[in-house]
Amino acid sequence: MPSETAQPAFVLVRPQMGENIGAAARAMLNFGLDRMRIVAPRDGWPNPKAVAMASGAGRLLDEALLVERTIDAVADCTYVFATTARQRGMTKPVVTPERAMEMARDRIAAGEKVAVLFGPERAGLENDDIALANAIISVPVNPDFPSLNLAQCVLLTGYEWRRQTTEVVPETVEMGGSDWATAIEMEKLASHYEDQLDAAGFFFPDAKADGMKRNLRNMWSRMPMTRADVQMLHGVLRQMVRWKERRD
Amino acid sequence: MPSETAQPAFVLVRPQMGENIGAAARAMLNFGLDRMRIVAPRDGWPNPKAVAMASGAGRLLDEALLVERTIDAVADCTYVFATTARQRGMTKPVVTPERAMEMARDRIAAGEKVAVLFGPERAGLENDDIALANAIISVPVNPDFPSLNLAQCVLLTGYEWRRQTTEVVPETVEMGGSDWATAIEMEKLASHYEDQLDAAGFFFPDAKADGMKRNLRNMWSRMPMTRADVQMLHGVLRQMVRWKERRD
Repeated sequence: MPSETAQPAFVLVRPQMGENIGAAARAMLNFGLDRMRIVAPRDGWPNPKAVAMASGAGRLLDEALLVERTIDAVADCTYVFATTARQRGMTKPVVTPERAMEMARDRIAAGEKVAVLFGPERAGLENDDIALANAIISVPVNPDFPSLNLAQCVLLTGYEWRRQTTEVVPETVEMGGSDWATAIEMEKLASHYEDQLDAAGFFFPDAKADGMKRNLRNMWSRMPMTRADVQMLHGVLRQMVRWKERRD
Repeated sequence: MPSETAQPAFVLVRPQMGENIGAAARAMLNFGLDRMRIVAPRDGWPNPKAVAMASGAGRLLDEALLVERTIDAVADCTYVFATTARQRGMTKPVVTPERAMEMARDRIAAGEKVAVLFGPERAGLENDDIALANAIISVPVNPDFPSLNLAQCVLLTGYEWRRQTTEVVPETVEMGGSDWATAIEMEKLASHYEDQLDAAGFFFPDAKADGMKRNLRNMWSRMPMTRADVQMLHGVLRQMVRWKERRD
């Protein structure tokens, strides 16, 4: 069963190697996409090499729409993107994957059907395929080394689809089973160190002691510590004191 | 020669298959990255399978820093990212690839050295590797099918590096060798069609003629046309008239 959420169809046009069809299926499913359409695969269909490579994403191949011509793959779509590596001398909007998937998101939210065409491995899409498209997606690669393969192009487009449609907090903190330390816990830690280091003669000479203490407190306050960290640092200090007392 | 522009080092930690090392090199160079570091590759070094797969990106392998321990690979770095697929129970910031490469860009611009760790194919990074990192990069994949391989993880991170550091216009129009038509050219085209269609009896009945003409002009003005398009549409109409005159 294709997922319930509306999404663009990814159309593989005349793909050659079965492995690449399977890798494209995996790349799609990584980003929650499961509507694949396939135009005239070179080695027929079904393709055992595609199935082997798809492994956990084999369902996409079983459910893929298989057609003979590119127009049949996009017949129900109101907006079609074509991915190409080079300029084609046709007057058409050229967009980044990011902009393309923004556009796809907005059109799909408005009830449109959107497809993205991916060309065969070596030659890419033919001009007749591109003439069916409303806009061209161009991945901003290094112009001196543009070597994206089919599954990589699918991967980057799928990544942008998910980026444009899934709310992801750009930065979180994984807590290793401990909460952040509170200000009073940090204060007690700072005092514990200050007192013991004072006893140990660390704040020397006297004229510099205040500055040294301030620097030490500044350092503690700069550290984002969990309660577990604080307990560990208390333990470190207690152990150093015990060790010193054993040696006396 | 590594490129002159400052960039993060990508560190492959204990990579297993030579093919994946080569594919990672290609993925990096696609986005203009060429500083690879390799920690204890399983099958020794140099690796002929890595060289074969890297093809045009073989230079990255020749220039790669080869070390025995992860710490040696990041010794000169002031900020280290680790890429992981699963939570590790360590208290650390977890960032998207996008946020990570924004942070890398800003730190590198300020003169810092930044590295990104990528783990071995099956197991991923060990906790001892991750303990060396300041933050974790987590790609927001489909939680039901997270199957990114090493080169794909390198590809997406490289893509984000380029996206954060290269000014790319999100939408341009490829002009197929012709400029956009001017307003006066569009006006002449509209009039040409209106006049000939009037002569042909298209605007019928009279009561609807004004509305039909307005709709036709609206349609022309909605079309983003080049001069070549306009000339072609003039030609279409002239030819239809000639044809009609031949048949009279």
